Amino acid sequence: MPLIALLTDFGTRDGYVAAMKAVIHNICPNASIIDISHDIAPQKIAEAQFVLWTAYRHFPAKTIFVCVVDPDVGTKRKIIAVKTPHYIFLAPDNGILDMVLAESKIKKSVWVKNKKYFLENISQTFHGRDIFSPVASHLLNDVKLNSLGPASALKKPNPIFQTISLKGEYEGTVIYIDRFGNLITNFRVEKIKEAVLKINGHTVTLRKTYGDVMEDEPVALVGSNGLIEIAARNSNAKILLRADYGTEVKLKSK
Amino acid sequence: MPLIALLTDFGTRDGYVAAMKAVIHNICPNASIIDISHDIAPQKIAEAQFVLWTAYRHFPAKTIFVCVVDPDVGTKRKIIAVKTPHYIFLAPDNGILDMVLAESKIKKSVWVKNKKYFLENISQTFHGRDIFSPVASHLLNDVKLNSLGPASALKKPNPIFQTISLKGEYEGTVIYIDRFGNLITNFRVEKIKEAVLKINGHTVTLRKTYGDVMEDEPVALVGSNGLIEIAARNSNAKILLRADYGTEVKLKSK
Amino acid sequence: MPLIALLTDFGTRDGYVAAMKAVIHNICPNASIIDISHDIAPQKIAEAQFVLWTAYRHFPAKTIFVCVVDPDVGTKRKIIAVKTPHYIFLAPDNGILDMVLAESKIKKSVWVKNKKYFLENISQTFHGRDIFSPVASHLLNDVKLNSLGPASALKKPNPIFQTISLKGEYEGTVIYIDRFGNLITNFRVEKIKEAVLKINGHTVTLRKTYGDVMEDEPVALVGSNGLIEIAARNSNAKILLRADYGTEVKLKSK
Repeated sequence: MPLIALLTDFGTRDGYVAAMKAVIHNICPNASIIDISHDIAPQKIAEAQFVLWTAYRHFPAKTIFVCVVDPDVGTKRKIIAVKTPHYIFLAPDNGILDMVLAESKIKKSVWVKNKKYFLENISQTFHGRDIFSPVASHLLNDVKLNSLGPASALKKPNPIFQTISLKGEYEGTVIYIDRFGNLITNFRVEKIKEAVLKINGHTVTLRKTYGDVMEDEPVALVGSNGLIEIAARNSNAKILLRADYGTEVKLKSK
Repeated sequence: MPLIALLTDFGTRDGYVAAMKAVIHNICPNASIIDISHDIAPQKIAEAQFVLWTAYRHFPAKTIFVCVVDPDVGTKRKIIAVKTPHYIFLAPDNGILDMVLAESKIKKSVWVKNKKYFLENISQTFHGRDIFSPVASHLLNDVKLNSLGPASALKKPNPIFQTISLKGEYEGTVIYIDRFGNLITNFRVEKIKEAVLKINGHTVTLRKTYGDVMEDEPVALVGSNGLIEIAARNSNAKILLRADYGTEVKLKSK
Repeated sequence: MPLIALLTDFGTRDGYVAAMKAVIHNICPNASIIDISHDIAPQKIAEAQFVLWTAYRHFPAKTIFVCVVDPDVGTKRKIIAVKTPHYIFLAPDNGILDMVLAESKIKKSVWVKNKKYFLENISQTFHGRDIFSPVASHLLNDVKLNSLGPASALKKPNPIFQTISLKGEYEGTVIYIDRFGNLITNFRVEKIKEAVLKINGHTVTLRKTYGDVMEDEPVALVGSNGLIEIAARNSNAKILLRADYGTEVKLKSK
């Protein structure tokens, strides 16, 4: 079952995503398509990076990921196709793949240039439809990565996570804020430990579940990705703690 | 064609739903997935209950419904799997299935406990991905309900509808408000009759179509579910009548 | 691979679209469904008209388009099915197809009346589920257009585009505003020329890419549809230029 996963900031109102899916069905009629998200804040690469990272590992092997948050569309920015042991990622070369590639082996990466696999007319503003979708579909139809363009060496990105394993003090940041207002940090833990966090003057204790705290009280949890996140039971931690992307978080573990 | 229907309050921005779909494709590659809704207000079980009820009857037999509005995730609340004559429902045992089960024969219900059908690592906060999705996929792959855990008797919920069949006076409430601001009541009719409703001091007459009233005038109609709903032509009845979930509605039928 | 494309103003919260998809799967289990959009502003036919036009051309031949923005549902308005060389369109006869049909050959059109292909009980307010979805599914199952009802001649709509090909002055309007606030005009160009636009007292120059201007500066581009659109780099042209649907735009080309 050939599978394409789509991640964009196009929203679902304007028909842009539908045009991409139509192109895919035209070239690879039996493709299955899963939407990762189309509601990334416009041009916010950091947000897309996290959403891709949180979802990609659960996909079947051979999934092709099409990631189009692309503020520089129409300029000379590169489009890259990157092969890892399980997947292929298509994206502008703007950092959107960094969280994934920091933890993946890069088996091959190419600069996507071969117009043979693009639509005939390339617009200046909608490469999602004109380049990304047809290229992904041709890959599903067994076109090889090497056919898409010249090899393009990628520097492996630095990991952004801090692994909390020993008693000590750590400094981190908020790297994502979900729709419930939960603040996801870059602190990674494997087992739940005793720890206390400080954010914007508030002290927040690491606990096991939402159920352990009162309504509206902030609580730190090991989230579903293994990252420490700060939530507020039946409330919104972003508002309660006046936090944003990049807000500093300190952690002391025992 | 094995079919899973998904209902959550996860929204579509954060990649949570995509992770669920990825898990499903991993275990049951030929599954079709239909989104019922992911825009249930966070943790609002009453809203999910109605949306499930409004949609489920139209699905093909053997559809598996995965319903994850789950404020108590991570506590000891049960997950249940319920078999009715046509369908299987997977949900936390929090009332989300009540409107459906009040009108269905419960053929079997089990407490979902068998970790063999879960993902290997279970997070505290995302059972949609770690438990619901893999269990539903294994059911599609013909795993039997009995394999999921011990039988768990369910009390048949009380029906919430009032059937309007005779001349008389009835008291009801607003049970759902849709995106157009239409107010759905728990008054059920089979044939359109003469009736007058009172809500927040306004008098609203039951009519056949939107076209029968002036712009902005409130009107009661038999909605697409057989329930009486209060709408306002080209306007928003919720705002116009200052109504909300639970607002009292009185009905006098002739 | 039988394919249905859906365009509605139902939103995705209330389960209405899910009911439509459930009906489709019931009648044509192997149908693929692509959502064009469900976030058309309620009852805004002009918006739906453009979104349909922007997406439809990319779909595979034989796609069936189901377009339900239908303010007059429940009145005597007609439902029509229109066959063009590549596609079939199902819609209320309210102008939603005008932009598509202005550029298409109409091979056949019928008034959809045959209840044999509807659901058994027809609600007054949800023909999307009760009429459009089952009729589209039966078409996928090879029911012929003639079976749906009597022929219903359609007048070919007037084109709304102005082709900019010669040096001169043109008057046009804003015909669509996307989620980024980009203003799409009815000026169509095939090659990028030198041109200057006036809108609400602002002068905007036609350029090749977003990259050619400063942040917040308005810029005119040939958009992905061949239409001139006015954008503002990393900003919102609708707000910046206080424009709306129907706002006048003048163009002078050299």
